Amino acid sequence: MSDPQFVETQHFTFADPPNELVLKSGVKLGPVTMAYETYGTLNAAKSNAILIFHALTGDAHAAFWHKGDKAPGWWDPMIGPGKAFDTDKYFVICANIIGGCKGSTGPSSINPATGKPYGLRFPVITIEDMVVAQKRLIDHLGIKKLLCASGGSMGGLMALKWAVLYPDTLHSAIPIATNYKHTAQQIALHEVARQAIMSDPHWNKGDYYGGELPAQGMAVSRMIGHITYMSERSMEEKFGRKLQGKEKLGYDFSHDFEVESYLKYRGASFVQRFDANSYLYISKALDYFDLSEDGDLVKVFKGVKTKFLIVTFTSDWLYPSYQSKDIVRAMKANDIDVSFIEIDTSYGHDSFLVEINGQSKLVRDFLNNAAQSVTS
Amino acid sequence: MSDPQFVETQHFTFADPPNELVLKSGVKLGPVTMAYETYGTLNAAKSNAILIFHALTGDAHAAFWHKGDKAPGWWDPMIGPGKAFDTDKYFVICANIIGGCKGSTGPSSINPATGKPYGLRFPVITIEDMVVAQKRLIDHLGIKKLLCASGGSMGGLMALKWAVLYPDTLHSAIPIATNYKHTAQQIALHEVARQAIMSDPHWNKGDYYGGELPAQGMAVSRMIGHITYMSERSMEEKFGRKLQGKEKLGYDFSHDFEVESYLKYRGASFVQRFDANSYLYISKALDYFDLSEDGDLVKVFKGVKTKFLIVTFTSDWLYPSYQSKDIVRAMKANDIDVSFIEIDTSYGHDSFLVEINGQSKLVRDFLNNAAQSVTS
Repeated sequence: MSDPQFVETQHFTFADPPNELVLKSGVKLGPVTMAYETYGTLNAAKSNAILIFHALTGDAHAAFWHKGDKAPGWWDPMIGPGKAFDTDKYFVICANIIGGCKGSTGPSSINPATGKPYGLRFPVITIEDMVVAQKRLIDHLGIKKLLCASGGSMGGLMALKWAVLYPDTLHSAIPIATNYKHTAQQIALHEVARQAIMSDPHWNKGDYYGGELPAQGMAVSRMIGHITYMSERSMEEKFGRKLQGKEKLGYDFSHDFEVESYLKYRGASFVQRFDANSYLYISKALDYFDLSEDGDLVKVFKGVKTKFLIVTFTSDWLYPSYQSKDIVRAMKANDIDVSFIEIDTSYGHDSFLVEINGQSKLVRDFLNNAAQSVTS
Repeated sequence: MSDPQFVETQHFTFADPPNELVLKSGVKLGPVTMAYETYGTLNAAKSNAILIFHALTGDAHAAFWHKGDKAPGWWDPMIGPGKAFDTDKYFVICANIIGGCKGSTGPSSINPATGKPYGLRFPVITIEDMVVAQKRLIDHLGIKKLLCASGGSMGGLMALKWAVLYPDTLHSAIPIATNYKHTAQQIALHEVARQAIMSDPHWNKGDYYGGELPAQGMAVSRMIGHITYMSERSMEEKFGRKLQGKEKLGYDFSHDFEVESYLKYRGASFVQRFDANSYLYISKALDYFDLSEDGDLVKVFKGVKTKFLIVTFTSDWLYPSYQSKDIVRAMKANDIDVSFIEIDTSYGHDSFLVEINGQSKLVRDFLNNAAQSVTS
């Protein structure tokens, strides 16, 4: 076990007009701040950069430690010296998405027009807008072509969108546990979570900053999220019908089962670490996502030269494998170099965060090949 | 198409002590009223009675028409002259469960001790308590042995429980889309729905009768329910990414997609037709359900002489088929006469309500055989 590596979050702000961001909706957003972290060293040729995209409630802190924290970044088992995304070889970058609440501009940021938090006056953003903002950061870092872009869940969507938007700037990509468009069930689950938040009187149409937070609504939305991130089997293996702090059923409405207490606890703590409005904006961006806007996915990948490794998990019912298989078919129709692996695991959608061994070997080999094909 | 058949709901009330109901928790409940309906005619031998159990939000009105209504009972396509549960041959009974809100005693009933609605002073009940109450009704009707008991989802649990509690009183049973114990995921989904209701300030710890109803909480809980009753595929086929009343995405937080509007509409209307406290009590009873209390399902079915037809649906992810297969194995270990059919359909858990053709043929043949074996 090597010594812990420390990292600090950095910030990059786009200037005011004419450098503001013109969103997909046509609305202009600026100034825009991006919070980001980097791990490893950019080589002289600037050819070893890997961009990691985070998932819905993730942040720029993908790896290493913040001083004083009790845990490292969210994908630390995958990123570091000798790990899958090997920081002895690669320069790894992760930025908080716009619309988020972890340092990048989002609904909890100060609206320069009013001097108060945006709240619902923040414009509705899309996955494309998030990717465009990250492209500004990569330009700022002087990187012309990324060796790789990767991420799970929403991060996978972003990697796909980058490959389509900027085909000459991405050598390879690893979209994990993802999809090319949000389905009715995925939209429905998000809409329930949004309704739970917006039903909370403390949400107050988005103007709760400095006041009481919409804790109950956030708790319910997070409980729904947790159920969808696990598989039926992993919940059964972890909790089954185990009772929580009692020998027998209580015959009242306190929690009887461990799974109830776990979800309540995880739900209740969520409001402290995540902004309710950011949850609304990001879930909406996900629901808006459809790479095949006119329905023709084959056409979308025309001209894409990126090499792909696409990874799914057998027990992921939120982003089931068949959706990635549709992507693979459309890529193959364009003669794109794509490998597809479905990992057999019971962890459900969360597998991209916890199924480290299987992913590490795949990612390491894929990156070795990608790096060789860049230099050869 | 034959003329519509009309029916009226009847009521049966157990007398005060000593005939009150002693619940599994030890609490005594009385007087207890059961709302029920019957279809067809009881024969002289009283050997053609079939008891239908309803699901979570169902009621006694399983078939035929109430005068002035726009729709017949909830399982009318399955129950009637010439239908699967053929009322030209059989006497079909359906009763509202205790804890419900459709005429049987539940949390919205008047508490005789206070003259006000019970609210949360209603005792927590179990599936066993519901079955015991229905046994009183069947005794009252003078029926010593049921030809069959059937139901989907919660109704299936009740049919299983009856067979175990009263093995000499049930000739055959058809549990559909059901389970022998609630799993962690099933408990978790219910707990989210309960938290959504209890988070609504209008819920007011269960004392909302005569005041404003917990409409937002009920809407969120119903939206979750609807998602779990459908399959990923049936949602995609029905809604996909179709927009609701607009040509393009709105870039705001109004509903963009048809699936959002549908869920919101179904959720909002739910509070008008169902009592929030009943939802809490019935979902809790389901979560408490474990036929194999000490973990040995084989032992549970010892001495059971009922013939079974167990039906599941391939796309039902809420009560997946593997759970019924566990039941079949435990029954076979007891030499119980059991047939198991998994119907291939995309309708998800709702299949027991909508997949009529496949179920009808199975049920009709099974009942013919059951009726013959009773008389032979």
